[in-house]
Amino acid sequence: MTERHLHLVETTVSQEELLRGRFLHVVRDHVALPDGQPATREYVVHPGAVVVVPLLDDGRVVLERQHRHPVGQVMIEFPAGKIDPGEDRRACAERELREETGYTAREWAHAGLMHPVIAYSTEFIDIWFARGLVAGERSLDAGEFLDVFAATPTELLQWCRDGRVTDAKTLSCMLWLQNVLSGSWSLNWRP
Amino acid sequence: MTERHLHLVETTVSQEELLRGRFLHVVRDHVALPDGQPATREYVVHPGAVVVVPLLDDGRVVLERQHRHPVGQVMIEFPAGKIDPGEDRRACAERELREETGYTAREWAHAGLMHPVIAYSTEFIDIWFARGLVAGERSLDAGEFLDVFAATPTELLQWCRDGRVTDAKTLSCMLWLQNVLSGSWSLNWRP
Repeated sequence: MTERHLHLVETTVSQEELLRGRFLHVVRDHVALPDGQPATREYVVHPGAVVVVPLLDDGRVVLERQHRHPVGQVMIEFPAGKIDPGEDRRACAERELREETGYTAREWAHAGLMHPVIAYSTEFIDIWFARGLVAGERSLDAGEFLDVFAATPTELLQWCRDGRVTDAKTLSCMLWLQNVLSGSWSLNWRP
Repeated sequence: MTERHLHLVETTVSQEELLRGRFLHVVRDHVALPDGQPATREYVVHPGAVVVVPLLDDGRVVLERQHRHPVGQVMIEFPAGKIDPGEDRRACAERELREETGYTAREWAHAGLMHPVIAYSTEFIDIWFARGLVAGERSLDAGEFLDVFAATPTELLQWCRDGRVTDAKTLSCMLWLQNVLSGSWSLNWRP
């Protein structure tokens, strides 16, 4: 946002830690609302993540099936993962693609950014496209179980419509993929 | 998902409560992985939400600007909100649109469903379209500050591309809007 919209802005007065779990870190901020009244905001502190749209030479895209415990379903997703401390975002995209699918890519393009859960998490997800894919060995983390498969963009778009794909990061990537493939949106590819 | 993919599925062994905040409820599940090994999963328990794509008679859509504390930015979003206990999803969509923007709608169509944060929240967001909009008085909750404005779908699509819109639920709704407006995806409108 280039405009400031100061009449909407809250300011932080203090912060307390609510939870240091094995996986989740939750804080509560005490804020001043735009009218000066006090309020509290609770949210997950997240390091940020990347998602990759991997384009095969035959026109298909690489996807994953993974059981996601909070929603109790096997979900269809683009490869994604959290950024390690100090890790470069493109390096993270390369690492997650290689670890989860085995693919390396000859060219990468940064597409955009999304915020998946603006009401209660700091998480951002950086969106990358990869092409010139070369298959290799994947190296899943201990306790990570996921299937890798390929689908045409037409199939994936149909699944977004019929409810087989409901993961919001994958739906948001589909918006990018559809407009890139139609030629409406261009990407800046780099080796 | 109609297929089961049982080789990916985790099963819950027990659950403990980690946090009962003023706003966030967090639990930790002890699960058995597909290979039988134990693991833990921490996540936010959420009642679910709705998002509304409100179509004005002049072709523009109704949007909101709201400061979102966890991401520290004023965000452009479609109207959305949490489902009250026992509340019907369409009734929730009507209520949130009216409270946040003042608009009521003559016709509604259910589009789809998204899961914004499958790694650490049970949240789903039900996607609705509204048309035949009639302006009225809005009734914001105490401490709720947001601006309502209108934009053409072409403007909104450009903002999704250039990074002015990064909210994943709004990006996902843009996928729906683009395909509905092109005639590729049809909606089932009801009074």
